[in-house]
Amino acid sequence: MKLAILGAGAVGRSVADLAADYGHTVVAIADSSTATVDPGGIDIDATLERKAGDDGVGTADPDEIFETDYDVLVEATPTTLGDAEPGFSHTKRALESDRHVVLANKGPVAERYEDIRALEAESAGSIRFEATVGGAIPVLSTIEDSTPQAVTAVRGVLNGTANFILTRMAAEGLDYEHVLAEAQDLGVAEADPTFDVDGTDAALKFVILANVLADGGFALEDATVEGIQNVPGSALDLAAEDGRTIRLIGEATRDGVRVGPRLVPENGPLAVTGTRNIVQIETRNAGSLHSSGRGAGGPETATAVLSDVGRLPLL
Amino acid sequence: MKLAILGAGAVGRSVADLAADYGHTVVAIADSSTATVDPGGIDIDATLERKAGDDGVGTADPDEIFETDYDVLVEATPTTLGDAEPGFSHTKRALESDRHVVLANKGPVAERYEDIRALEAESAGSIRFEATVGGAIPVLSTIEDSTPQAVTAVRGVLNGTANFILTRMAAEGLDYEHVLAEAQDLGVAEADPTFDVDGTDAALKFVILANVLADGGFALEDATVEGIQNVPGSALDLAAEDGRTIRLIGEATRDGVRVGPRLVPENGPLAVTGTRNIVQIETRNAGSLHSSGRGAGGPETATAVLSDVGRLPLL
Repeated sequence: MKLAILGAGAVGRSVADLAADYGHTVVAIADSSTATVDPGGIDIDATLERKAGDDGVGTADPDEIFETDYDVLVEATPTTLGDAEPGFSHTKRALESDRHVVLANKGPVAERYEDIRALEAESAGSIRFEATVGGAIPVLSTIEDSTPQAVTAVRGVLNGTANFILTRMAAEGLDYEHVLAEAQDLGVAEADPTFDVDGTDAALKFVILANVLADGGFALEDATVEGIQNVPGSALDLAAEDGRTIRLIGEATRDGVRVGPRLVPENGPLAVTGTRNIVQIETRNAGSLHSSGRGAGGPETATAVLSDVGRLPLL
Repeated sequence: MKLAILGAGAVGRSVADLAADYGHTVVAIADSSTATVDPGGIDIDATLERKAGDDGVGTADPDEIFETDYDVLVEATPTTLGDAEPGFSHTKRALESDRHVVLANKGPVAERYEDIRALEAESAGSIRFEATVGGAIPVLSTIEDSTPQAVTAVRGVLNGTANFILTRMAAEGLDYEHVLAEAQDLGVAEADPTFDVDGTDAALKFVILANVLADGGFALEDATVEGIQNVPGSALDLAAEDGRTIRLIGEATRDGVRVGPRLVPENGPLAVTGTRNIVQIETRNAGSLHSSGRGAGGPETATAVLSDVGRLPLL
């Protein structure tokens, strides 16, 4: 397939880097102000080097992406809330041109799910969004293959930054502020870590899951969300005396979405460590499926994007 | 899709039972000596009741299955080794009629993988075999979506009977013979448990995985296999003193297949309990994905079969 990649952050760059391994050609890539386009396939190494040298990805205008002959738009621009712009409009434009869209951007499917599905219904193209939930872990494709109707709930840890912080607080007996600073030094938490530590990032993912289970009906505002900023070190010590620990756990069912710090058994499946993620998919006929793995990172998320590309029908 | 089900054991019956939930019609089902056929869809409840009453599945001849107008042959007859007959011939016949085949029977893809792929190449139909490895856990589809080339190894626990026995031996300090009898009483182990306890069942699954990774080249005879029959209770006690336990672990890489009892950390991911299974899929770009769930059972395996049906292209 011919890929047009919108977004040249860690995910967009990794998709460009790995596309050929999956048998695909990158015909265009754009960041917020520059682009490079080549119908025969861009020079990926040169483009990535240029970007690494802070010189954008090329000399074209990002809008030229949409003039290119591509099969799949990879939308990897930063997640935005509310109207989910400009990600929503990018997606709309591709679907209205009867092209496929693979989202790494959570905004359109968390905040405007029904609108996106309506556009998809009118298009020869399809949308897929495995990369929006759980990085490398195949969550949405598992639900799709089981059929959503057979899934009753999805629960788990879907934010690696918060999980890392709680793991370190428990392991070292350190307080939140101290471990957050450590996480930022390691690049595990961003300079502005708000969405990771206040539960928003996890909530967006569980909202997407609830939308898949219920075929729409949820946005971030519908989720009940509590973050980890107020978890004291003493709570973790107390939990440990009882063979338990605390993790930022989310749950999505057809009835709603909740995210918050919860007590979990110390050696149980939900007590994943470090930046690892886990989902527990509860099914009607096959009990509980647990999948864990790396929930974030350029290459990790790119594998989810490229998995999705592989499952798209030819146009 | 129209399904023709060969085999009316737990798996075949569960596929018939759940097919409608997934939007499919059962046009035929056969056990070893009887069949029932109806191009408009068989009366599933009546057929399952008849079978439960030990009166076969109908009055037709099993061979009539192949005369029916079906899209997908579900091959759920018992796994056989060596020439993998009659499962291999059933698969061949369907592919030669340009029909799809979904296997729950491990024989053809463990013992004669290249032959099956050659038949598939000449057919308008495709083969899928998620149900042959790990029951409800989506192992093969995960490898497929990641692309096999991106997977370096698959490791894990893929036999629930052996795992149950080892779990109980460790938990209760009982010896193998005692726990085996308990497992048989519970229906977790068969009257003839040989293939479960001697590692053959697990080995067949890891051989299938090696065949997927390497695109053929392996059969059961190529695997190095050791079972659990000689694990003494004392070994588990000693392991526990060290914070470890013993599980029947298998591993498949492009270089080969090994199955045997191994020491694993007591609270680590490989120490699944009871009849649960787990696979660790090692990838080039996304670290290690772990998936655990119910590895066996009628409904569990049927969900894997029906997942596969959902991924087949229209004929």
